[in-house]
Amino acid sequence: MEEALRSGLRHGRWAAGEKIPSVRTMAEELGVHRLTVLKGYRLLEEEGLLEASYRSGYYVRAEVPAGEAAGSGVRWSYGAGTACGAESRLSDIHRRAVRYRMSEALLDPTLLPNRFLARHAQEVIASQPLLLSTYSTVMGDGELREAMAGYMQDRRLELSAEELMVTTGAQQGMDLAFRALLQPGDKALIERPTYSPAIDMLRQLGVRMLPVEIRPDGYDLDRVEKLMAAERPKLFYLNPTYHNPTGYTVPVRQRKALLELAERYRCILIEDEAYSDLYFHEPPPAPLFAYDTEGWVVYLRSYSKYIAPGLRIAFLAARPPLLAAIRPLKALADGGTPLLGQKLFQSFFFSHRMQEHLAKLRVAVSMRKEAMEQALSASGWSWESPAGGLNLWVRLPEGMQASRLLERSLELSAAFVPGPICDPLDAMQDRIRLSYSLLDERRLAEGLARVLEAAEGMG
Amino acid sequence: MEEALRSGLRHGRWAAGEKIPSVRTMAEELGVHRLTVLKGYRLLEEEGLLEASYRSGYYVRAEVPAGEAAGSGVRWSYGAGTACGAESRLSDIHRRAVRYRMSEALLDPTLLPNRFLARHAQEVIASQPLLLSTYSTVMGDGELREAMAGYMQDRRLELSAEELMVTTGAQQGMDLAFRALLQPGDKALIERPTYSPAIDMLRQLGVRMLPVEIRPDGYDLDRVEKLMAAERPKLFYLNPTYHNPTGYTVPVRQRKALLELAERYRCILIEDEAYSDLYFHEPPPAPLFAYDTEGWVVYLRSYSKYIAPGLRIAFLAARPPLLAAIRPLKALADGGTPLLGQKLFQSFFFSHRMQEHLAKLRVAVSMRKEAMEQALSASGWSWESPAGGLNLWVRLPEGMQASRLLERSLELSAAFVPGPICDPLDAMQDRIRLSYSLLDERRLAEGLARVLEAAEGMG
Repeated sequence: MEEALRSGLRHGRWAAGEKIPSVRTMAEELGVHRLTVLKGYRLLEEEGLLEASYRSGYYVRAEVPAGEAAGSGVRWSYGAGTACGAESRLSDIHRRAVRYRMSEALLDPTLLPNRFLARHAQEVIASQPLLLSTYSTVMGDGELREAMAGYMQDRRLELSAEELMVTTGAQQGMDLAFRALLQPGDKALIERPTYSPAIDMLRQLGVRMLPVEIRPDGYDLDRVEKLMAAERPKLFYLNPTYHNPTGYTVPVRQRKALLELAERYRCILIEDEAYSDLYFHEPPPAPLFAYDTEGWVVYLRSYSKYIAPGLRIAFLAARPPLLAAIRPLKALADGGTPLLGQKLFQSFFFSHRMQEHLAKLRVAVSMRKEAMEQALSASGWSWESPAGGLNLWVRLPEGMQASRLLERSLELSAAFVPGPICDPLDAMQDRIRLSYSLLDERRLAEGLARVLEAAEGMG
Repeated sequence: MEEALRSGLRHGRWAAGEKIPSVRTMAEELGVHRLTVLKGYRLLEEEGLLEASYRSGYYVRAEVPAGEAAGSGVRWSYGAGTACGAESRLSDIHRRAVRYRMSEALLDPTLLPNRFLARHAQEVIASQPLLLSTYSTVMGDGELREAMAGYMQDRRLELSAEELMVTTGAQQGMDLAFRALLQPGDKALIERPTYSPAIDMLRQLGVRMLPVEIRPDGYDLDRVEKLMAAERPKLFYLNPTYHNPTGYTVPVRQRKALLELAERYRCILIEDEAYSDLYFHEPPPAPLFAYDTEGWVVYLRSYSKYIAPGLRIAFLAARPPLLAAIRPLKALADGGTPLLGQKLFQSFFFSHRMQEHLAKLRVAVSMRKEAMEQALSASGWSWESPAGGLNLWVRLPEGMQASRLLERSLELSAAFVPGPICDPLDAMQDRIRLSYSLLDERRLAEGLARVLEAAEGMG
């Protein structure tokens, strides 16, 4: 079968770009089973002779388009749902294999208590052999939620276990909250710059984004109020503590004022907090949720990132009516986060080693931050030195384009996030986000030397 | 604070059902912090004196409405999104604490290889200590997907690892596929009866359901074709192998014919397969996906249910263009199923003990099925004896109402699923689903005696 086809291709029976007969037609023509033809077509596809485009059939391959990624080249679009858009603009960068990865705001696995966690995990499994055969409830394990509510209460948060939902990563909490509270055509406030998957999610939901600049001292609250009054946004997605990508922290008085605005204009605040324990000197202010007496905040709290990111255990806290609006989507999405990860998280999060680990981690991360600042000190580039978190938000010299700098850096095997990816308006070409959390001091210095080399002669 | 309020309530300062001042107003009135007031209100809420309704405030409680569940009594609706509906109609039944639980199509944990799995889990964690600090990719672990593709290929499925996505339970796969492929107002074919969360999901998406009866010998394909031609449904959600709730299996010739209809009318088939390994005599026919040469099937394959349900590891298989439409939603939903569960699944699914376990499980489940049939033999009720799966779909005698029978059975501490919950048209009061997988033979006999006792004098 393949031979007949291969020969047909070689002798020009079909031209480059031309559609060859469908699997069904070819099977009938040759009198063979359709699966035989499918296998043959696939073999020739692997050999690069054909290009697959299931719905519209197979095509004779002309040439490999420049920059074609695996799975692209699909001509037929299902087009039914709203999903066929960009996945995550960050992931394109993360997929590049580079030596100096300053594009990912992730902790270096060597800083995590892996052996300790593995030992804990073994104890948990040994002592609860039925764990693997048990489903979690939709809201998450009751014991874990009780323990976490207590932990949060000790940290000035007034809440009960009933106000906590366990999610598979904070990302899931964000996805559920957005989908529960927004409809296509709705408006939402979003920080500028912001955590880029939030932009992707809101775009995909067909929501109109109203950007609010975040600055070292917070927001322009007059502008926030004007937008809330004039545009009536359904929600405001914010990341007020060691903000990603800038590292800025919204001051306490603004937090309280935001709550009042939220109440006045009936605008829900989606507060994303991931790194508040990774402060370098003083702990940050309490989250907005601490002031939420009227039920206007959805608080997304990620912890597993600095313990065991692979566990994907995070919490969504909200007052009961708001939580009741989100819960059905969690039930439909996965019926509850897998129990094993919840129990493992619980076992080590509440162990005494946890606070020791955090204390060490703060020192290690702050040393890396200083190493990055040191390596950039002669560059003439500028930034606000963050008081916590994983990122430096750097302003490039006049005329230097972040995306062009990224291209040149990638050639030298160093990656970072260019400003436009974090900008709901797709601008901010004068900014880049450099994460100092994944590489050690020596590799940070080497990687930044590459970026600076790439910048030479630009701008 | 609480005392002042308690006294005010006692002396009738506010009438039953009346709104008391908001947290903000009361705090200003008393000159105390808002959080103090919130805590006070909550205390009185716990004491049953107040009823919370955050947005509109707190109300003096009149009396506890009959049948009020935790978290209900909310008067304010966020109303923004599409989520504020029923969660799962099944879960209401599952929440009831009963002694004889024949409502859940779950395997008895004592039939699962728990100790063996726990040992495997410990080995996996010991040998891969970095597992807990590593994120999965969006599509799932490459090694697991390669292994599963090989396993499926050995079982007559032509597919590659690139056509497989790991999902957090088959439920997540269904949610992602529905959301990727459907928009509000679209039409979808659905079996009647069907797996009830599918009904909940489609309702929540605002999709118009077109029911297709499933019978012991499959569907009326003429009707399916007429519906496809006239209504142009986007997809058909089906569960053709040991169908839930009926246990019916769609024959091979219908499977092939369905593929042809799907191609002709451009209707995607969402094929849900959960229990095909739990056959009592002969293995069932190959899934529809085995015949999918043109890319019209999304195949949802659950395995973890009969190994370690708590792991929540399932697979979604589809040809590349269809998968490409679903993938972005998985990226947004959770960024990838937690890696630990994937590696644990892989470790024991591909062990030699797995096939031994399955062989024993088939015997155990078929004995329970026979025990259930035995216990019902004198009832005069009728059913098709299933060739696999976990459920008996029983027809009640003329005039007996399933929901009424459930009420009376619950009083005797026995639960099952009444027909209407499985029916997209909310009828089928003459049917009930009895699951024989969770209770052992003795308890099945006892539980069914209760159900028959409840039925006495009815109908």
